[in-house]
Amino acid sequence: MTPDAFTTLDQKDPLRAFRQYFDLPADVVYLDGNSLGALPKATPARVREVVEEEWGQQLIRSWNTRGWIDLQRRIGDKIGRIIGAEPGETLVADSTSVNLFKLLAGAVKLRPGRTRIISEIGNFPTDLYIAQGLAALLGDGIEVIAVKPEDVESVLDERVAVLMLTHVNYGTGAMYDMAQITERAHDVGALMLWDLAHSAGAVPVELNAAGADLAVGCGYKYLNGGPGAPAFLYVAERHQAQLQPAISGWFGHAAPFAFEGDYRPAGDIMRLAVGTPPVISLAALEIGVDLMLDAPISAIRDKSIRQTELFIELVDQEIPELRGSLASPSDPLRRGSQVCLRHPDAWPIMQALIARGVIGDFRAPDILRFGFTPLYVGYADIWKAVRILRHIMVTGEWRQDAYQAKSKVT
Amino acid sequence: MTPDAFTTLDQKDPLRAFRQYFDLPADVVYLDGNSLGALPKATPARVREVVEEEWGQQLIRSWNTRGWIDLQRRIGDKIGRIIGAEPGETLVADSTSVNLFKLLAGAVKLRPGRTRIISEIGNFPTDLYIAQGLAALLGDGIEVIAVKPEDVESVLDERVAVLMLTHVNYGTGAMYDMAQITERAHDVGALMLWDLAHSAGAVPVELNAAGADLAVGCGYKYLNGGPGAPAFLYVAERHQAQLQPAISGWFGHAAPFAFEGDYRPAGDIMRLAVGTPPVISLAALEIGVDLMLDAPISAIRDKSIRQTELFIELVDQEIPELRGSLASPSDPLRRGSQVCLRHPDAWPIMQALIARGVIGDFRAPDILRFGFTPLYVGYADIWKAVRILRHIMVTGEWRQDAYQAKSKVT
Repeated sequence: MTPDAFTTLDQKDPLRAFRQYFDLPADVVYLDGNSLGALPKATPARVREVVEEEWGQQLIRSWNTRGWIDLQRRIGDKIGRIIGAEPGETLVADSTSVNLFKLLAGAVKLRPGRTRIISEIGNFPTDLYIAQGLAALLGDGIEVIAVKPEDVESVLDERVAVLMLTHVNYGTGAMYDMAQITERAHDVGALMLWDLAHSAGAVPVELNAAGADLAVGCGYKYLNGGPGAPAFLYVAERHQAQLQPAISGWFGHAAPFAFEGDYRPAGDIMRLAVGTPPVISLAALEIGVDLMLDAPISAIRDKSIRQTELFIELVDQEIPELRGSLASPSDPLRRGSQVCLRHPDAWPIMQALIARGVIGDFRAPDILRFGFTPLYVGYADIWKAVRILRHIMVTGEWRQDAYQAKSKVT
Repeated sequence: MTPDAFTTLDQKDPLRAFRQYFDLPADVVYLDGNSLGALPKATPARVREVVEEEWGQQLIRSWNTRGWIDLQRRIGDKIGRIIGAEPGETLVADSTSVNLFKLLAGAVKLRPGRTRIISEIGNFPTDLYIAQGLAALLGDGIEVIAVKPEDVESVLDERVAVLMLTHVNYGTGAMYDMAQITERAHDVGALMLWDLAHSAGAVPVELNAAGADLAVGCGYKYLNGGPGAPAFLYVAERHQAQLQPAISGWFGHAAPFAFEGDYRPAGDIMRLAVGTPPVISLAALEIGVDLMLDAPISAIRDKSIRQTELFIELVDQEIPELRGSLASPSDPLRRGSQVCLRHPDAWPIMQALIARGVIGDFRAPDILRFGFTPLYVGYADIWKAVRILRHIMVTGEWRQDAYQAKSKVT
C-alpha cells in the first residue's frame, strides 16, 4: 500500500467529521486513547461554565438550579445507551475500582452459600486486587480464583457466586463473546460482572441483550471524559431492589436530605451512589459522552476493524523484526480496538516512539500497545505510525540511553 | 451597634486582603461556605491549564511530566499542614464517605475481637450510614451504636473497636475537645476516628498533638476545592504498616505499574488510594488548599469567633422572634465556625433569605445554619444578613407561597 491509499481512505471515511471536534496536538499520532482519550473541543467551555458561572456565581444553589444533583444519573443514562442498558440501569460514580468493590460485595451477598469469585489471569490488575481485598475483608471462606481464559468455563460450578471478566483485555485486546460467557455463568447460577473499561465507546456492547447482571467501566478512555474521569456502573433492573449497597453513603439514601439516622437505600440505581461526586470532572465527562452518542457505534466498529487490520498488515509488511510479534487475536471479531505487539525491549521502543510523536503505551512486561480511537485517529496516522516505528527498529534508535530509563508511570 | 462599627471592623481586619482572592457575586452575602466554599480567583486559570494544556496537548504524558501521579499525596501533605499531620500522613482520595468506609474497615480489623463502632446520634448521616453498611457487610456481630454526645464517654469499654466522631457537628456547630475524647478512646484501647468536614480550614486542628489515629475530611467546604472536590484521609504514621486496605485498588499497590497479579499494599499512606483520581477536580482543590495555607489559622479562628459572637448578639438584639433560638453552643470555644438557629419554619425562612441574597443553609428538621468563612465573609456582611433576616421575620415575608415548596436538595 502507498501513502496515497491512506489519504483516500480518510477522504471516504464516514466518521471523518469527528476529528475536528477534538483538540489534538498537530505533531502527534495519538494511539493511546485507550489510556486517556483526547480532549473534545467543547470541553473547555463547559468546564469554564461550571467553574465560573455555576460554582462561582450560583454557588450552592447549582445543586438544584443547574441540576448537579442529577448529573450522576443523567450521564449514567447516556452511557447506558452506549452499552445496551435501559434508562435507570447505569450510574456514574466513584472510580472503576470502587465500583467493582461495590458490585462484587453486592454480588457475593446475592449468592449466599457460594464462596467463589472467578476471574482471569491477565485481567486488569485492579479487578483482581479489589476482589482479593474484598475476600480478605469478608473472610467466610470467600476466595478469588483466577484462571486462564480458556479455562474459565471449566471452573464454573455451584460454588461460584460471581464471574468477573473484562470484556476486552487491556494487555492483549482479546474480546470475550459476552452473550455466550454470560450464559455459561447463568447455567451454574452465578452472576456475571463485566468490566467494560476497554469496550464502552470502542466496540458494540449489548449488556441487556447478553443478559448481563452487573458491569463497570471507565470514563477517561474511549468516552473522552478527561484524566481520572468518574467511572460508571450498571446493575440490571431485575437486581436493583435486592442489591445491598456495601458502601452505603448519603447519596445512595432514599432521602439524602432528610438526614435520617438510619440508612435506607434508594429504590433504584441511586442506591449505588455513595458520596458527593466531583462535579467539575462530571461536567467534563458529559461532553465526551455526548460526542460519543453522536457517532454510530457500527461505523466506529467498522473503522476500528479496518484500522487495526491495516496496522497489523503494514507492520508485517514493513518491519521484518516485528513480524510474528502480534499479541492480540488475529481474528478482528475476537479483538477490541487495539493492537498489541510483543517485544523484549518494548519499553525503550515505546519511549523512542513517543519521542518521535507516536504515542502508544507500554504494558509490562513486554507489550507495545496501540489503541485505535476511530473518532480522531485517521488512516494517514496509521501509515505515519508504522513508518516511524520502522525507522526506530531499522536504525536501532531505541537502544539510546535516553530511552532506557524507567519513569514512575510506565 | 451601628453599621459604621462593622465597616471599621472590616478596615482593621488582618485577613481583609483575602476577600479579593475570591470571586463572589456582588449581590450575595454568602454564609454557606460550609456547604460549598467560594471560588478562588486563581482556580479558573489553573483548571484551564490542566484541561487545555496538560490533558489536551500533553495527553497521557502528563501523568509523569506534569506530576498527576503525585497529586493525591502532594495535596494531601498540604492539607496535613492544616490539620496537624506530618508529611506522609494525609492523602487526597475518593469522597469522604468512601474514605470513612476504608478507615472504619481497617480499624475494625486492627482491633480483632472487638465488635463495636461507637458514634453520636446527630452525627452527619453519611458517617452513620457508612458504619451501618460496613457492619451489615461484615456480620461477625459488628454493631454500630450511636449515643447522645454527653453519653459517649460512658459507653466506651473493651468492646469498642473504634470511636467515630465529627469534630464540629454539621447541624449545631458543637465542637468536641479532640485531645480529651481521643484520650478517653485510648483509655479503653479503642481507635479514634475524627471527621473533619466542618473543621479543616475552619478551626485549629492538631491531629498528632491530640494523638488521633484516623481522620477524614472534605475538600469542598472551608478548603474551597470546588463542588464535590475529592476528600482526604489521615492515618497516623504508627498505624500505616498495619492498616489493611479493604478497597484494595491498583493506585494503592506497592508497584501499580508492574501489573502484578496479587495485591501488595504500598508501604505508606498510598495504600489507601484506590482507583485513578479525578485530575481536573484535584487541580481545582489544590488552588483552594494553597490559598488556605497562606492564611494563619489563628487569625481565621479569631475572626470566626468574633463574627459568630457578633451575629448571635445582633440577632438577639434586632430580632425578638429569634431570641433564644440559638441551637449552637453559646460558648465560642465549644463551637465551630457556624451559628445555627432553630425555628419550626426554618425551611421557608431560609428560602426567603436566599431570595434576598443571603445564602445560608436549611438542615432538617428546623435548623437555619449560617457558616462563617473568615477568608471572604466581612463584618459588614453580618450586619446586612441580620438586617435582611430581621426584615423577613418582621414582615412575615417567608409565609409567601413561593418559599414553601421544597426542592430536591434542601
